[in-house]
Amino acid sequence: MKTGYNALFIPGPTNMPFRVRQAMDVALEDMRAPDFGDFVKPLLEDTKKVFKSETGQVFIFPGSGTGGWESAISNTLSPGDKVLMSRFGQFSHLWIDMCERFGLDVHAIEVEWGKGVPVEEYAKVLEADKNHEIKAVFACQNETATGVTSDIAGVRRALDAANHPALLMVDGVSSIASIDFRMEEWGVDVAVSGSQKGFMLPTGLAIICVSQKAMAMREQAKLPRTFFSWDDMERMNATGYFPYTPATTLLRGLRASLDMIEEEGLENVFRRHHRLAEGVRRAIFDGWKLKLCAHGPEWHSDTVSAIVVPEENDARDVISRAYERYNLSLGTGLAKVAGRVFRIGHLGWLNEVMVCQALGGAEMAMRDAGIMVEPGSGFGAACEYWRTAETAGMAKAAE
Amino acid sequence: MKTGYNALFIPGPTNMPFRVRQAMDVALEDMRAPDFGDFVKPLLEDTKKVFKSETGQVFIFPGSGTGGWESAISNTLSPGDKVLMSRFGQFSHLWIDMCERFGLDVHAIEVEWGKGVPVEEYAKVLEADKNHEIKAVFACQNETATGVTSDIAGVRRALDAANHPALLMVDGVSSIASIDFRMEEWGVDVAVSGSQKGFMLPTGLAIICVSQKAMAMREQAKLPRTFFSWDDMERMNATGYFPYTPATTLLRGLRASLDMIEEEGLENVFRRHHRLAEGVRRAIFDGWKLKLCAHGPEWHSDTVSAIVVPEENDARDVISRAYERYNLSLGTGLAKVAGRVFRIGHLGWLNEVMVCQALGGAEMAMRDAGIMVEPGSGFGAACEYWRTAETAGMAKAAE
Amino acid sequence: MKTGYNALFIPGPTNMPFRVRQAMDVALEDMRAPDFGDFVKPLLEDTKKVFKSETGQVFIFPGSGTGGWESAISNTLSPGDKVLMSRFGQFSHLWIDMCERFGLDVHAIEVEWGKGVPVEEYAKVLEADKNHEIKAVFACQNETATGVTSDIAGVRRALDAANHPALLMVDGVSSIASIDFRMEEWGVDVAVSGSQKGFMLPTGLAIICVSQKAMAMREQAKLPRTFFSWDDMERMNATGYFPYTPATTLLRGLRASLDMIEEEGLENVFRRHHRLAEGVRRAIFDGWKLKLCAHGPEWHSDTVSAIVVPEENDARDVISRAYERYNLSLGTGLAKVAGRVFRIGHLGWLNEVMVCQALGGAEMAMRDAGIMVEPGSGFGAACEYWRTAETAGMAKAAE
Amino acid sequence: MKTGYNALFIPGPTNMPFRVRQAMDVALEDMRAPDFGDFVKPLLEDTKKVFKSETGQVFIFPGSGTGGWESAISNTLSPGDKVLMSRFGQFSHLWIDMCERFGLDVHAIEVEWGKGVPVEEYAKVLEADKNHEIKAVFACQNETATGVTSDIAGVRRALDAANHPALLMVDGVSSIASIDFRMEEWGVDVAVSGSQKGFMLPTGLAIICVSQKAMAMREQAKLPRTFFSWDDMERMNATGYFPYTPATTLLRGLRASLDMIEEEGLENVFRRHHRLAEGVRRAIFDGWKLKLCAHGPEWHSDTVSAIVVPEENDARDVISRAYERYNLSLGTGLAKVAGRVFRIGHLGWLNEVMVCQALGGAEMAMRDAGIMVEPGSGFGAACEYWRTAETAGMAKAAE
Repeated sequence: MKTGYNALFIPGPTNMPFRVRQAMDVALEDMRAPDFGDFVKPLLEDTKKVFKSETGQVFIFPGSGTGGWESAISNTLSPGDKVLMSRFGQFSHLWIDMCERFGLDVHAIEVEWGKGVPVEEYAKVLEADKNHEIKAVFACQNETATGVTSDIAGVRRALDAANHPALLMVDGVSSIASIDFRMEEWGVDVAVSGSQKGFMLPTGLAIICVSQKAMAMREQAKLPRTFFSWDDMERMNATGYFPYTPATTLLRGLRASLDMIEEEGLENVFRRHHRLAEGVRRAIFDGWKLKLCAHGPEWHSDTVSAIVVPEENDARDVISRAYERYNLSLGTGLAKVAGRVFRIGHLGWLNEVMVCQALGGAEMAMRDAGIMVEPGSGFGAACEYWRTAETAGMAKAAE
Repeated sequence: MKTGYNALFIPGPTNMPFRVRQAMDVALEDMRAPDFGDFVKPLLEDTKKVFKSETGQVFIFPGSGTGGWESAISNTLSPGDKVLMSRFGQFSHLWIDMCERFGLDVHAIEVEWGKGVPVEEYAKVLEADKNHEIKAVFACQNETATGVTSDIAGVRRALDAANHPALLMVDGVSSIASIDFRMEEWGVDVAVSGSQKGFMLPTGLAIICVSQKAMAMREQAKLPRTFFSWDDMERMNATGYFPYTPATTLLRGLRASLDMIEEEGLENVFRRHHRLAEGVRRAIFDGWKLKLCAHGPEWHSDTVSAIVVPEENDARDVISRAYERYNLSLGTGLAKVAGRVFRIGHLGWLNEVMVCQALGGAEMAMRDAGIMVEPGSGFGAACEYWRTAETAGMAKAAE
Repeated sequence: MKTGYNALFIPGPTNMPFRVRQAMDVALEDMRAPDFGDFVKPLLEDTKKVFKSETGQVFIFPGSGTGGWESAISNTLSPGDKVLMSRFGQFSHLWIDMCERFGLDVHAIEVEWGKGVPVEEYAKVLEADKNHEIKAVFACQNETATGVTSDIAGVRRALDAANHPALLMVDGVSSIASIDFRMEEWGVDVAVSGSQKGFMLPTGLAIICVSQKAMAMREQAKLPRTFFSWDDMERMNATGYFPYTPATTLLRGLRASLDMIEEEGLENVFRRHHRLAEGVRRAIFDGWKLKLCAHGPEWHSDTVSAIVVPEENDARDVISRAYERYNLSLGTGLAKVAGRVFRIGHLGWLNEVMVCQALGGAEMAMRDAGIMVEPGSGFGAACEYWRTAETAGMAKAAE
Repeated sequence: MKTGYNALFIPGPTNMPFRVRQAMDVALEDMRAPDFGDFVKPLLEDTKKVFKSETGQVFIFPGSGTGGWESAISNTLSPGDKVLMSRFGQFSHLWIDMCERFGLDVHAIEVEWGKGVPVEEYAKVLEADKNHEIKAVFACQNETATGVTSDIAGVRRALDAANHPALLMVDGVSSIASIDFRMEEWGVDVAVSGSQKGFMLPTGLAIICVSQKAMAMREQAKLPRTFFSWDDMERMNATGYFPYTPATTLLRGLRASLDMIEEEGLENVFRRHHRLAEGVRRAIFDGWKLKLCAHGPEWHSDTVSAIVVPEENDARDVISRAYERYNLSLGTGLAKVAGRVFRIGHLGWLNEVMVCQALGGAEMAMRDAGIMVEPGSGFGAACEYWRTAETAGMAKAAE
């Protein structure tokens, strides 16, 4: 018999703000009402701000991040098109898999799990592609499976250095609205996110932002698309409506979420995520004396930490004990790192005291599973960091 | 300044039961939790019952009915495949449009709006197709735009008479869970529905049921699919999980909706819809002396009535007055019937007293718009029918 | 098996606005938090505006209107004090009963049920009371049991004419926030209301407003009081806090309710109530050819109509059929008028289309019970009035 | 700018279960509906079980625990009646104050704050009261201000030893449904609780249980009572209804709360509270090296710990930092212990991981306030206890 709530520390879905939950607790509504467009238009505009885009076009589809990936591909590419990708975790893998299913000619660079987009190799490949056969370059900003953040600005520099016209497609599902992302500045062409991560909503929306350059690719893109087509959506959105029934309750929730992000300030949201993540890393390194899957500070993710357990242990024991005995959900290790890592998601509507739940539960579950970290050590390291680092919203946490 | 709630009488989204709303007012959850599958498996099984399918496979995608259509097509067909369809309203039109976008060879029979699937013409075409070039026959069970219900059993009989192996694809978006539908008995191969109609949920789910025959078509179907692919979904659903993050709040709502349907009894749900619809028709015919878009009783829909306004009037005036002045949402006329009809949706979580709102508001709005129906006439006719016809749940309303 | 919601047309609790429901759907909170007072102080101030009081003191007790009555009595009077009251319905009766239990010397004037406070008789009694033995005069502004509104300004004039210093105590439970009430202008000393009527909240709060004159009476009032004491409450409220744990969820709901009243405009709220009530009366008089319990237009209540059934019928049959068969709650006849009247509450968060439910359901239930009103007659009369009378919020409905 | 929720660790209101919150998120209802009594009767019966009463009578008043105190007094006693009480904290003090306001002759024994009901002194006083002038003995089972639990069974033994017929009145506001309480076995005559503690509901209900002996006292009790009268309530409750409008949303929440208690098992609820409390005490004693206000293990409360700060510190600094900086609500020191203690409430819907929030936040806030407890020490001690003590629900945590 479990009591209390399940403490949700997977890297998405995240802790939904009560205000968002309330905003969605509404009656259904007439999506053709005369004033519905007055709600939709600013919603799309404000969503765009989260991408730091000025000239882009935002699309919100019923679906999930996976649907967003599909939308990015099918509206811009044709069967046989060459694309440059890299695989370093389950989610970067799945996007590669999708491209292959769509009949693209995928050049996938294999990277050790724990590192991210290989910017230098990308640079070399792009430099070598004198005929510009590569139509799009894909980059996963935050690999959720390994807790690795990649350098998207670096990918843009590689493209620019090679003077390469390929589209830049970014998977920002577990980074956008949590980790700094700059659509315009970095020249991203399609950025894909979902509702259930930094947007702090239930799953159910693919949220993407598209550059005008990518919009223009539709004319030559031969892949079929209807549900995830930009054409119908762009035409109807211009009037404030949708080509098919939109998920109005989620849109109402998104309104609340955007308001909260605006009130906190997007930069403060990023700082808070960094600060919370850094506390968790202090717990892992200084307290528990464990390692992250991420190979170095340059890869550290501020939304999820994948913690490597000692070789003689199985991370699944930690996860199952946390869930069964302490009502705490931790993220599991996927594919290649199954059993080797457990993950703490630290994104969304969180503060220090809330994160204490993950630290406490993980500590108990690890010791239960035979990983004898010092009791209170992770917690003490994290709290002392949080206490002495400057407050979120005032300054970037001192390192 | 409007007060009170907006009375929602469009043909979907419908009035969400308070119990369903409550069921979705939950925290987000771990879709990989050890016990999540214990929730998912019976959910899929119980959804199947609503389709009256025993051997079929149910799929629930984040999306909408439109996504369900796409899933039906892309998992079973290949570019250039010949399909038999018919167009008699905006939604039957849109499915045709989708098939054309997917590069299918569409044989679309044009039917007067107000009638439905031309079963006899289908029979002739199928009979003539000796080489079985037609791979699939499409039928819209309930054309939401015109309030017309078609004879799906008749389409099956036409297929059987011609001994034709084509798949039978049915759009049941605005009929399933409201109007009798029999997947198994009628040999339907793919039935498509959405969450926001008879399932009484918010928009956000495509709910489809697939016959084993259709499942087997995947091997030869060449259209690309990933998000709406049956393969990944089938494999993961078998374990109680999903290939990508599911829309858990909607699934929780679906649980409540299925429980409510089970408690009322599916046949009673159908009877109630018929009874409410018949009352509305009495109001239209006997009270207001107006006509339906549907050309005769054999086409009358039990989920939506499209009311034709006198030639000198514009139905949009009725709709806008109802919305602006009385806070009542009526359905608009789409495409060919724009301005000619307004629609009263009478599906979902409704009873007689609730429907009185549509009758009262429509009466006031019509008189405001210069359609001088006799005050109280529609209402009187409907209520007297409801009062004297036997009670829903006890017997099929006497005619 | 009932489907749909129960249509709530009792004279309180009323239809709670969705916005109020949402506002209360919150976590519990720390009622001693440093910023809790910042919420409480403007809440009390804004509540006072609804009473049209400038110099009064508002108190919000966990409880109900009955608790408010007790608070009014116990903080101002002493055992044996003489009070002037009148009985013309179940609720005016109950307040008399309470005064008697508190050992007051009650001079209760018996009035025919269907009329209200006998202002002229009050005037005579007050005139005759040269020694000012009467310490308080009680008046029920709206007798919920009979649908009768009394002339509070008249009672004030009677007091003034006699130059009588007695306190004026008003039961405004089913009138305040729905029917015009003027604490300051009418010189009311204690006005009592509850959360579940015009304030559109769940039951659970006694909301009262007290003049400074009444506040000063505490010094000599000998009746015991602790829970409903003004002393502790006044002292703590001044700081924004409460002497014991307040019902914070209801207070959050009250905030939303006050915001809604402010946005609509208090005078518009009154006009809307009048307009809806007048439509219901047209249904009763012009449509159904029935009578109200209220003896004439001067007594007509804008929040509740008590409809007299023909002598050969029992109103309870109407009420039970409405509830059991149509899922509609009507108000029952209480005490002396049991079986003779059924009541339609038309107060709170309502519009014309919503009220159609009560008219439709009542019509069906009456005919079921053998009261053969003309089908559609009530509805037609009401709707035609609503349609042609000017819109609520723009002008007082023309008579 | 605070983010995340406020972590609520005051000793009531408590963390409301999501299920309870959902159960209250309903439309208002007709409290005179034919089937309302079918809901009320089992609700009252099941509430009684929580008191472990078989022959008692449960009453649920709109109000708060303070209203419950008043109900206990005014229904059983008369002005001038002698009562035996003891004062050892703010809440035991307030009940004494109420008795004095009601004109009772209070014999109040002063006890050092940190201890509880002085059973031996009670025994002496009762033994000496040969004429049985003492009409009632009052005992506060759990003094919320100091975190002290008293021995109610001991008070019963003292009464029995003296063969004394006085009523035994118990304040169980912060103990009932959290700490073992045995109405029947201990011969308690009136037990008072409120909705916002162990019942895990919002504030708004006084919940009391009354023995038949106390019920019989009404005949001779001269104190006035109407709102809190047992007579009206008993008469109406017998039919499943209430003498005035009940707080239906809270009653719906109570239904959910009772179901949850039943499902967990009342004894398991007690064990869980003990287990969580013991973990907190390990943090305080073994980790932080601080002291409780409670003077020894026999007084330790399983629902609230009042932690004494070092003499040179002010506990208010801890509380304000916890609230302002970490969004954590701790209980303040009241009256005599203001500034000397801060309190952690650990009652209601809680588990170990949830309590980690209080430990983490308190540790940070204490260090911020200059109380330099060892980082992670409290947390480590608590978690190791929780991890190694047997699981709640399986066995009483080993001491």
